[in-house]
Amino acid sequence: MRGSNARVVILHRLRDREGFTSGQALARELGISRPGVWKHIESMRAEGYQIEAVPRLGYRLIASPDVLSAEEILPLIRTKAIGRRILHFENVTSTNDVARDLAVKGEPEGTVVIAETQGEGRGRLGRAWVSPPGGVYFSVILRPVLPPGRLGNVTLMTAVATAAAIREATGVDVTIKWPNDVMADGRKVVGILTEMLGEADAVNFVIVGVGINANTDPRQYPQSVRTSLTSLSAVLGEPVDRLTLAAAVLQHFDEDWTRLARGQFGDVLHDWRRMSSTLGATVRVSTVRGVFEGTALDIGPDGELIVAMPDGRKCTFTSGEVEHLRSA
Amino acid sequence: MRGSNARVVILHRLRDREGFTSGQALARELGISRPGVWKHIESMRAEGYQIEAVPRLGYRLIASPDVLSAEEILPLIRTKAIGRRILHFENVTSTNDVARDLAVKGEPEGTVVIAETQGEGRGRLGRAWVSPPGGVYFSVILRPVLPPGRLGNVTLMTAVATAAAIREATGVDVTIKWPNDVMADGRKVVGILTEMLGEADAVNFVIVGVGINANTDPRQYPQSVRTSLTSLSAVLGEPVDRLTLAAAVLQHFDEDWTRLARGQFGDVLHDWRRMSSTLGATVRVSTVRGVFEGTALDIGPDGELIVAMPDGRKCTFTSGEVEHLRSA
Repeated sequence: MRGSNARVVILHRLRDREGFTSGQALARELGISRPGVWKHIESMRAEGYQIEAVPRLGYRLIASPDVLSAEEILPLIRTKAIGRRILHFENVTSTNDVARDLAVKGEPEGTVVIAETQGEGRGRLGRAWVSPPGGVYFSVILRPVLPPGRLGNVTLMTAVATAAAIREATGVDVTIKWPNDVMADGRKVVGILTEMLGEADAVNFVIVGVGINANTDPRQYPQSVRTSLTSLSAVLGEPVDRLTLAAAVLQHFDEDWTRLARGQFGDVLHDWRRMSSTLGATVRVSTVRGVFEGTALDIGPDGELIVAMPDGRKCTFTSGEVEHLRSA
Repeated sequence: MRGSNARVVILHRLRDREGFTSGQALARELGISRPGVWKHIESMRAEGYQIEAVPRLGYRLIASPDVLSAEEILPLIRTKAIGRRILHFENVTSTNDVARDLAVKGEPEGTVVIAETQGEGRGRLGRAWVSPPGGVYFSVILRPVLPPGRLGNVTLMTAVATAAAIREATGVDVTIKWPNDVMADGRKVVGILTEMLGEADAVNFVIVGVGINANTDPRQYPQSVRTSLTSLSAVLGEPVDRLTLAAAVLQHFDEDWTRLARGQFGDVLHDWRRMSSTLGATVRVSTVRGVFEGTALDIGPDGELIVAMPDGRKCTFTSGEVEHLRSA
C-alpha cells in the first residue's frame, strides 16, 4: 500500500504549477522540515516520479509513473460516496478478497481497493479473470439498504458507470450486452463481479469488483478466452491513459451509485438502454429452462430482459446467457 | 477443538457395553498399543468422562461430561449431509464467524461448528445473542444451489427442524411464530441467523447459526430481553439433556435440508403450518410500509404471510415484525 497525506499535498502543489515549487513553501504548508520534504521527494522518485530538484528554485514534476495510486487518483475525482479512501497495491490475490476482508472488519462504504495485477482474479461463478499489468482492477465496498434479491441492480449499475466512463475517457464506443457485459468490437473488455455478505432479507455489505482490459495485450490471455475478450488498447491501436480512465470510472460509479441508493434505478436503466447493443437485436437466450430465440424488446424495471418470441409471446428473463444473432 | 477418531471408537465401544471392555480389544481394533489406549482414556478423564479402569477387566464408562463434542454427538446421529465433520469449541466469538472463515477457505457443505459459549453471539441485523453456558450454539455450512432471494427458505426450514427436534427431545411443546421464531410460553427460545456469501444470482455458501436457550438461566439475560426470551429448562422446571437435543436438531436439520435441496419446500411448509401459532391468530404486522392488523390465514409457497384484513382484502407480507394480538 502506498500513499500519505503529505505526498498527496506535494503532488497536488507540483501539478498546480508549470514552474518550480519551493521546498520552503511545501515545508511550511505541511508543517514539516525541508529535509522532511526532501525525504518524501526521494521516496516518490523511487516509485517512478521524475522530479527535478534545483537549489534555490525548488521542485518541478516532469513525469508521473503509470500507477493507479491514491495520490494520483484523488486529485482527479470529486466523488461523494466512493473513493474517499483508496488502497493501492502492486499485486493482490484478488481485489474482491482484500475488500471483503476489510469489510468484515468494518471498513466503511466507499473504500476502494486497487491493484496493478491480481494473482487470482475472479470472475462470476468462480471463473478466473486474467489480470496482467496494464489493466484497471479495483473493488468498491458498498453497504446498501437492499434486499439480497436486488443485487443484480448493483451489477447493472456498475456496467453502466464503467461503459460511460470508458466512452468519456478513451473515446472507445463500448456497448452493453445484457445484462452487464461491456463490449468493444464484439468482445468483452470489462469483467464485473458483485459479491455480498448478507442475511435472508438484508445485505450486510457488497463488494463490486471491476476489471478493465485497458492496456493489456490480448495475446497474454489464455487461448480459451482470446476469441471472446479484447482490450481497449487493442481496439484503439494505442494505449489509453489508465489514470484518467480509473478516475472517470470512480466518478461515474459514484454518480450512478448515488442514483441507485436514492431509488432512481430507472435513470440508470435509461443510460443502460442508450448504450445497449442488445435491444433490437435478434438474440438467443440460454437458461436452465432451455434455449430461446427472439427479438430483444426492452429491459424491465429490475433489469430483466424482455424478448418477443416468433409466435408473438413476450418472455422475460432474469438470468441466462445471451448471444446476439443479428444486430439491431 | 476436541476429538479424534480413536476416541470416537473408544466411546462407542464403552457405551455399547453394560460391563467392561478390555484394553486389549480396544488396542486391537484401533491398531495401537495398550498404553496408547490408556493415554486416550486419561485425556478423556481430564475432560470430565468418568471411566472406571480395573486390571484384567478393562474399562467401563460411568458418566459423560455435559459437552457437545463430536465424539458425544456423532454416535447419536445418522445424517446424510449434515455433521459429517463436527468442530467443537469451549468458547468462540460466534460460531457463524468461525464457520464463515472455514467456508471462505473451502470447508465443504455439512460441517458443523459447535461452541459451549459465544463471546459475541450475533442475532439478526447485528443484534447480540447472549450465549451463556448451558445453551446449544452451533452453525452449519451449506452450499445450496439457490438464488440469494430464496435464502429465507433456509431460515424457515431451520425453524421447522429446530422446533420439531425440541418437541421430540424435550417434550416442550414449542410453536413457531411467523416467520421463524421458535416460542415456548409466549417467549423466544431459539435464535436463528442465516448469512450468506453470494453473487447477484448465485449463493456461494450459507451459514445457518442456531442458538437454543436450553439450560440457560433467563436471569442471566440482560433486562431488555428478559421479557421476550426464556429457556427450555425454565419452562420445564428441570434441565434438558443437551446432547440428545443437539443430536435431534442435527438429525432434523439433515432431513429438512435434504427436502429443501430436493425442491420439496412444500413439505417443510406443511410442518411449519402444523407447528405454527401464527395461523388463525389476530396479528399486527409492522413493516416499513406501515402497521397492519388482521387474521393470519396461511403461509405462501415462499414462506410469505397471508393476512385477511378487516375490509376483506388479503395482504401478503414477505418481511416484518409480527405480534400475536389474539391466539387462534
